[in-house]
Amino acid sequence: MAASADSPVYRATTTAPVNIAVIKYWGKRDAVLNLPTNSSLSVTLSQRSLRTLTTASCSAIYPAQDELILNGKPQDIQSSKRTLACLSSLRAHRKEVEAADSSLPKLSALPLRIVSENNFPTAAGLASSAAGFAALVRAVADLYQLPQSPRDLSRIARQGSGSACRSLMGGYVAWRAGTLEDGSDSLAEEVAPAAHWPEMRAIVLVVSAEKKDVPSTEGMQTTVATSNLFATRANTVVPERMAAIETAIQNRDFPAFAEITMRDSNGFHATCLDSWPPIFYMNDVSRAAVRLVHDINRAVGRTVCAYTFDAGPNAVIYYLEKETELVAGTIKAILGTKADGWEGPFYEPMKDLSAPGVALDKVDSRAVEVLEDGVSRVILTGVGEGPVSVTDHLVSEKGDVLSH
Amino acid sequence: MAASADSPVYRATTTAPVNIAVIKYWGKRDAVLNLPTNSSLSVTLSQRSLRTLTTASCSAIYPAQDELILNGKPQDIQSSKRTLACLSSLRAHRKEVEAADSSLPKLSALPLRIVSENNFPTAAGLASSAAGFAALVRAVADLYQLPQSPRDLSRIARQGSGSACRSLMGGYVAWRAGTLEDGSDSLAEEVAPAAHWPEMRAIVLVVSAEKKDVPSTEGMQTTVATSNLFATRANTVVPERMAAIETAIQNRDFPAFAEITMRDSNGFHATCLDSWPPIFYMNDVSRAAVRLVHDINRAVGRTVCAYTFDAGPNAVIYYLEKETELVAGTIKAILGTKADGWEGPFYEPMKDLSAPGVALDKVDSRAVEVLEDGVSRVILTGVGEGPVSVTDHLVSEKGDVLSH
Repeated sequence: MAASADSPVYRATTTAPVNIAVIKYWGKRDAVLNLPTNSSLSVTLSQRSLRTLTTASCSAIYPAQDELILNGKPQDIQSSKRTLACLSSLRAHRKEVEAADSSLPKLSALPLRIVSENNFPTAAGLASSAAGFAALVRAVADLYQLPQSPRDLSRIARQGSGSACRSLMGGYVAWRAGTLEDGSDSLAEEVAPAAHWPEMRAIVLVVSAEKKDVPSTEGMQTTVATSNLFATRANTVVPERMAAIETAIQNRDFPAFAEITMRDSNGFHATCLDSWPPIFYMNDVSRAAVRLVHDINRAVGRTVCAYTFDAGPNAVIYYLEKETELVAGTIKAILGTKADGWEGPFYEPMKDLSAPGVALDKVDSRAVEVLEDGVSRVILTGVGEGPVSVTDHLVSEKGDVLSH
Repeated sequence: MAASADSPVYRATTTAPVNIAVIKYWGKRDAVLNLPTNSSLSVTLSQRSLRTLTTASCSAIYPAQDELILNGKPQDIQSSKRTLACLSSLRAHRKEVEAADSSLPKLSALPLRIVSENNFPTAAGLASSAAGFAALVRAVADLYQLPQSPRDLSRIARQGSGSACRSLMGGYVAWRAGTLEDGSDSLAEEVAPAAHWPEMRAIVLVVSAEKKDVPSTEGMQTTVATSNLFATRANTVVPERMAAIETAIQNRDFPAFAEITMRDSNGFHATCLDSWPPIFYMNDVSRAAVRLVHDINRAVGRTVCAYTFDAGPNAVIYYLEKETELVAGTIKAILGTKADGWEGPFYEPMKDLSAPGVALDKVDSRAVEVLEDGVSRVILTGVGEGPVSVTDHLVSEKGDVLSH
């Protein structure tokens, strides 16, 4: 059957960002509803560097079963309970809309065709699932013209992938753990918009794009079940850090933001190491990045950069735009010819930097060597906005899958 | 002045062993008295592999100031408060002996010349200070013919180097943290003699003999002061593990001993990582050893080996003699031609092993590569006895420094 005035193809397309947590999500108190053991907080990264583009469409001309195509590959949607949970919630909301206004088309009854593309490799520790589920939920909500706010939708995205709830908003975003059993108070909230502190920059040092050893869902459950130190982290340490980092963000206090970020990353990886069997995500290259950041801060005499590591070896280094020369300039002096990625919109302010901001004899020479050998790519980015509705659809007016 | 019947040179010589903790000492509650935040437990390693040899001598012919010569190098004894504290306590005990029997020579009034040699590199993460201070205290106590038991002397050795108190005894030794402010109940106790479980073997994988980054005294104080997870370890986790591992030792229950050992090593390094700034002692080679041990245990289907790491990258792998083929045989298949050290008394039972006990396709191939590249030496040893009085003095009858 072809698309026609009687059987139109409805479409909505959105982009969604990656977010990198500065207070880490690690541990579920409910694995089905994706309820976390502790609150977390992230910086939404600019979609000028990293983004997922997703088109949600529905039409009577489609096969009866919903379809999902990721990076050109059809997915087995029926085996993904998480995807089914998101789509089921979104359809239920559409039914409410349709029930309230009978003039609206019955989109909830039509099969979906969802097409999504990342502009970065999946499963490389770059939070691709967060951007992916945020884009899916945002695109279907737009297709269904749902009245729900990003905060409301974050409840749904959370069921797809916990950290996805934080990618529905820009800037500085908290995921409140909540306390209710049904998870209705476990949702994302904007702590501050990107415009409140737009100078935040991030360099991602991509250590390895190989698939990681222990997937985070499995790893975090191992930690909850076996680490003797985890309960202290979840119950005591993180709540204090959440309050402190929100204050630091409100005050645009980079040194405080930086120290909390680094300590929380270290504490998270400490509970991984304390798990049984132990989980290691950081390697010698990651540790060289830790060393470099501490050495830059020591050489400058104040805290101008901060590292954080997700469930993988890649380092994300935060700094403020005004410290571009000291931080990015020093990293460029080390990796400018060794790693790819010195390009894009965030490269402009450092294009003309030739000398390191911090003399390289002030940083550990062995760390420099390890970074030169172990970092394959840098990604230059900064704080950015939440999902944006766009018109470069990945599904044609006739319902065909397009590609960008 | 020369030695003579009127001015004899008094001598006593002892050996002392290295010990490797299975429940780690990390953190002081009193830095002057070397009182620990938590109890610890170690295996004393055989002196057939690693030992310190120390001669304590005293004579009226010596210069007025006490002398200490370590591995051929005179030490500035006056700047070492710890050495001074040990010698002062030992002299006070000698004075008590002399006061009780006026026929005894007044050795406490004579200058000391102490000469000590390790048969392994110092400060390479091999607990050289533990063996060194144990030997010093034991040698001077023998010279002074003190009536104090090893348990009593462990209070003195503790003030030299915390873990030294555990090297005054053989077998399986606990250092009770104690609760008294003056430290009088913070001492070592034999949990079981070597003869109770003589089959315990250990392979040390020497990853790097370079001096370590953060000395342990400084590192542990950083952890106590900054790690949010440390108090949970010291107050809750370690006391439970101490009780459990003592039971495992009494029952000669290797799987229980092994799991507690591995988990405590991981938990200790987790609190290092949680310190600020973070402390890393394990590197990618250490982690490859962790992987190898888990893979061997998985392939065999029971726990036949256990790793532990002190404040450095070297792995110590415990196993029982009957599992020599499975554990040492597999390690020999990997490192037999790549690392030095396949020699000595503990090499005998594995001399004729040519095939690995566990097929190498059952262990992570990348871990094997990293170990081949990163381990420079193996040390083959096992549980052993405490200090032994010997006659191969490092000081001649005339008071001259000798060398072996």
